[in-house]
Amino acid sequence: MADTLYYFPPCPFSRKVRILMREKGLDFSMVEENPWKRRKEFVEINPVCQVPVLVSTKSVVVDSQAICEYIEEVYGGESRMGRSPYERAKVRRLVYWIDCKFYHEVTRYVINEKIAKQYTKHGSPNPSLIRASMSNLQSHVRYMEHLIDTNGWLASREFTLADIALSAHISLLDYMGIFPWDLSPTLKEWYSLVKSKPSFSQILGDRIPGFAPPVHYAQLDF
Amino acid sequence: MADTLYYFPPCPFSRKVRILMREKGLDFSMVEENPWKRRKEFVEINPVCQVPVLVSTKSVVVDSQAICEYIEEVYGGESRMGRSPYERAKVRRLVYWIDCKFYHEVTRYVINEKIAKQYTKHGSPNPSLIRASMSNLQSHVRYMEHLIDTNGWLASREFTLADIALSAHISLLDYMGIFPWDLSPTLKEWYSLVKSKPSFSQILGDRIPGFAPPVHYAQLDF
Repeated sequence: MADTLYYFPPCPFSRKVRILMREKGLDFSMVEENPWKRRKEFVEINPVCQVPVLVSTKSVVVDSQAICEYIEEVYGGESRMGRSPYERAKVRRLVYWIDCKFYHEVTRYVINEKIAKQYTKHGSPNPSLIRASMSNLQSHVRYMEHLIDTNGWLASREFTLADIALSAHISLLDYMGIFPWDLSPTLKEWYSLVKSKPSFSQILGDRIPGFAPPVHYAQLDF
Repeated sequence: MADTLYYFPPCPFSRKVRILMREKGLDFSMVEENPWKRRKEFVEINPVCQVPVLVSTKSVVVDSQAICEYIEEVYGGESRMGRSPYERAKVRRLVYWIDCKFYHEVTRYVINEKIAKQYTKHGSPNPSLIRASMSNLQSHVRYMEHLIDTNGWLASREFTLADIALSAHISLLDYMGIFPWDLSPTLKEWYSLVKSKPSFSQILGDRIPGFAPPVHYAQLDF
């Protein structure tokens, strides 16, 4: 029986796992799960009620990075984590930077202020928090640009989980029409290459109720 | 030549790596590095100027979890990450919870408001942020207590990196005299067991300029 991924379209961590699983050619089904609804059956699977969760006949794995490491360990195939312990250290370092620091300084505000408030019909976005996140984004863009200029892809010459993690966050910001592409031709070219990967393409079909993506969202050349 | 750990006493991530390296019996030297000083030689080693950093003759590894995974991969010895892919998934999930969520909701405010402002002599603590962090701490305490009640240690029946990560954060809060031990006899007993480990003992000797720890800080029975 194939694994099941509990997935929420506005969640960058759900997107990251889905891209990795497609990148590795894994067979899996998806359940769309809105964690803000706190669905009883889902809380039984994951009491802290966070997505993504990977459920197989043998295990329930919670947390996007724990899932990605688990997939790398258990499912084999070509690694997206780097080819040596030192390369893996570079990939992990960037994944944590993106999923923890970038998330807390940028993506989280966009999700909490714009998307969560639309989904829950509770309150309206705080513009000063959105402005703060866009200001924080600028220094992250410069850092990521520096990494791509130095390495080719983010962590090395190869497409790794670091690129997957960043593309998951950026795809969400781009869907919301707030990614400042003019700031960085380097990042725009990098994202265009990511978009062209078959593992990434399905992400572009996700829709977030209440928000329509900009026209360029699914275009490879934008 | 032994490895060098760039270490900052008020940094829970530095503490985590130091405890793991001692737990695995590794030979290493330490350089005390205050990242807020942005020392030129350190910025050359790590341009984003974060601690901890592990430097060996062959590599510079940045980010506490990347360092811990690297140590587990390269240095062998008894693992503190779990015995199977599924156990490792449980350990990693909790380490990310502690180092990302617990950090951003609790420890970060204490470091930024109390310690950083004392070190840099710039501004005074914002009491509403400290209150918010102490309020957030309560739900984390209940979750951690539930895990210990269920598993013995945090992630399993064995002492793992999840326990090391949590003890690193709690030791800092306890040094600052703000951990609410009355809230949780379970966590108090757990921390007493962690304190008794030789790998942890040196942490209790760290001092943070401008702050004296409470009398019970280094006592095993507190």
